Parts: sequence; C-alpha cells; structure tokens
Amino acid sequence: MKTIENRRTIRKYSGQPVTDSLLHALLEKAGRTQTMGNLQLYSVVVTRDEAVKQRLAPAHFNQPMVTQAPVVLTVCADFNRTSRWCEERQTVPGYANFLSFVNAASDALLYTQTFCNLAEEAGLGICYLGTTVYSPETIIDVLKLPRLVMPIATLTVGFPAEEPPLSDRLPLAAYIHDESYRDYTAEDIDTYYIYKESLPENRHFVEINGKETLAQVFADIRYTRKDNEALSTTFMAALRRQGFLE
Amino acid sequence: MKTIENRRTIRKYSGQPVTDSLLHALLEKAGRTQTMGNLQLYSVVVTRDEAVKQRLAPAHFNQPMVTQAPVVLTVCADFNRTSRWCEERQTVPGYANFLSFVNAASDALLYTQTFCNLAEEAGLGICYLGTTVYSPETIIDVLKLPRLVMPIATLTVGFPAEEPPLSDRLPLAAYIHDESYRDYTAEDIDTYYIYKESLPENRHFVEINGKETLAQVFADIRYTRKDNEALSTTFMAALRRQGFLE
Repeated sequence: MKTIENRRTIRKYSGQPVTDSLLHALLEKAGRTQTMGNLQLYSVVVTRDEAVKQRLAPAHFNQPMVTQAPVVLTVCADFNRTSRWCEERQTVPGYANFLSFVNAASDALLYTQTFCNLAEEAGLGICYLGTTVYSPETIIDVLKLPRLVMPIATLTVGFPAEEPPLSDRLPLAAYIHDESYRDYTAEDIDTYYIYKESLPENRHFVEINGKETLAQVFADIRYTRKDNEALSTTFMAALRRQGFLE
Repeated sequence: MKTIENRRTIRKYSGQPVTDSLLHALLEKAGRTQTMGNLQLYSVVVTRDEAVKQRLAPAHFNQPMVTQAPVVLTVCADFNRTSRWCEERQTVPGYANFLSFVNAASDALLYTQTFCNLAEEAGLGICYLGTTVYSPETIIDVLKLPRLVMPIATLTVGFPAEEPPLSDRLPLAAYIHDESYRDYTAEDIDTYYIYKESLPENRHFVEINGKETLAQVFADIRYTRKDNEALSTTFMAALRRQGFLE
C-alpha cells in the first residue's frame, strides 16, 4: 500500500479500458472488509452506459468526470437484500429505521475505501464524489434503487491521464488526541492551519474569490450554512422515501 | 495490500507493544485519504490508559478486547476543529446540521478504513467495534467530546495472538448490479445465501440459539427491530446533544 503516500484524486482518464475482469477482482477483494455481523450491508451499481452517465451527471453538478470516466460506481447502503433474505427465511426484518441506515452506510463507506486503496494500488485513478449525498433522489431514480437502499458514495474510475500535485494535509497533531479530546485554542488553530493557508494555490483561491481568508472561501462560498440546511432536508426526505425513518 | 485477502478480525493480542512511533506513522499515512474539500473532518482519540479503557468498556457491551488491547482508537466525525478555524478567521461556520454530520462521518469512516488496511499490512490485528453507534453518550462523556464531535468507529489494535478461521463472504454477484438495481427473487436469495447457511459454524449457531434459520438468529436475536428502534432514538438524541440537528 505504498501508493497511499502518493495518492492524488484523478479527474482525467486515459483511453486504457478498465476491464470487467480487473474491476470485478477489485470489487470482490474489497468484500473482505469487515461489516456488521458479516452481513455486507452494501451494494454497488456499476455504470458504463453513456446514457446512464448522462442521467447521473446532474446529480453530481455535471462535473465532467461522470461522463468521461470509463466506469462510475455508486456504492449504496443496502438493507434490502438482508431484509429479502429474512423474508425468505421465516422471519420479519426490523431494519426500517435510522440506526440501520447508520450501520449500512458505515459498511458501505468502509467497503468503498478498501476498494479505493486496492484500485489505486492496481494503478487506477479515482475521484470520490461527495455530491452523492446532495442529490440522492436523482440517483435513486436513475439507478432504480428500491426501499432500504440509499446511495452513499460515488467513484469515477479509470487509468490516470494526469498527475496533479500532491495536496496538503493537516499535521497529525491537528487530529489526534491523547486519552481525551482537548479543544483547540486560537494558537492551536494558527499552528495547524498556517501551512495550508500559506500555500500559493490556496492564497490564489482566496484572491479569485475576493475573500480575506481561506476559511471564508469554505464557509461563505463552498459549504454554506444555507446550502447545508437545505441539503439536510433533502437528505432526510430521501432517507424517509427509502424507508429508513419508519 | 495482499493482506486484505487473508484478513481476520483479531480479538486477542500478544504482549508485543504497539509503539507510538508505529501508531503515529500509520495514523498519519491514513491521513492521505480523500476528504470533503480536503478539510479532514475527523479526529482520533487514542486510549492507552487502563482506567479510561475500563470506563469505555460498558459502551462496548464489556467486550474483553476493549480492556485487553494495548490501544483503543475512537474515530470521530469532527466539525468542531473546522468551525474553530472559521471562528478564528472572520467567518461564521454553518455546520450544525445533519448533512454536515453525514459529511464528517463519511470522512471519518473512509479514514478509519485506510488506517485498518495500513495497520493490517503492518502486521497488526484489528477489531472494529460496531457498538460505537449504540452507546455514543457514554463515549462522549468519557472522551470529553465537545459539540460537533461525534464518535463513529472504535478499533481495538494490537499484534495478533490468534489466527481465527477466515470468515465467509457473499459471492460478488450478490452485491453488484449492472447499470441499475435488479431486485432479488426468492431464487437469487437461495443462490447467494446457500453457502453461508451451509457452513458448520453457522448451522451450529442456529442450533444453539434454538432457531430454524440463520436469518432468524439475526432478525430475532442479534439485531432486532425493537433494539434498532430504541438505538435509533438514542443515536438521534446524541446527534442533537452534539449540535448536529440545529
């Protein structure tokens, strides 16, 4: 897993095909990831069809990777399959509730990340689309996801046709806590964020957005309270529609 | 990452110490995992102190790994640090909402799984404790987690002192769908679950629980509707207490 140290998000893909045999081998290996009660509470919908990619694209703010990547994977929290199993085996499933969504979403995300680690090690490039949780209803409709199935992560996958610079990370001290959480002083914040804020690309980002600080770009433009509140309502509505809030 | 193919959940640990230098190197490498806006919306609380382990144990149903493992890691969805950054940089954070919890929990789980893959590759054994989402309030109190920090995954970590048998997995066909989700017929369920149901350990499990089917052990005993509904309420209350439902 040496690749983790040099991983980049890849948004441009070469013409080299991602064969089903490679893709399936990786999806199967990722299945070794631990899950709740070993129930594997996830499903993966594989999109290769151009028309389906076109229909998924708006859910991902029409980011070009969705239509340009050879493969799009939508990983779903799935309590439908386990519930169908229960129904076929003389018992009544009890998974139409929020905690079961949390459990299935956890399984789905852990599985997703093992897949990413494996795929990057195999030379593939990945872009993880956080937009999945912004427009779940469109994805549910396009992929025909039934009750108790909720899209949770989307990956665009292909062989890289770019090598973007390595992105920055906070120092380890910024996110580990010994024995109990010690809250951040103003001085801690300076120490942990000064490097990120000093990077030329981030200073440029602040400038072109007409802001004074990098945090303002995030809080005032990219991830605003207004959007987050509206999207919280949308997400809850989708959870309800998929039967996870009964 | 060849280790993924032979990974087992490890619940018994040898006396070999897990040094801070090894642990920190792995926690830092895992930080290469992609996150929302590269904000790294997670924190990790490291527990080595015996007294703290004793206080965490009830939250994990007193499973012996919690007190016996050299290290316990609690990975948290964390919008506190980013919000503190915003406050120190002349802007008002807007993350006291459900979608922000989903985003931070996603970052935390993806980070957790890269850590697991790296740790297993380094020869460590891990047990992922799903109990974290059952008793969040105890964990919040013991680890002194502030507003906008929610425990999401717990790992017990140490060098293995056991080699349990490899656990079964569903065949790949059970969880991949081409282009759109095709729901499961009774025949599909038979095909995908027959192997799991036929295993001697699972037949034994059905027998000692006085049940007729393996699915009944899950739905009637291990993960019941009644428990799931009660735990959904508990989890929502903890989310509210931590400020994610404002």
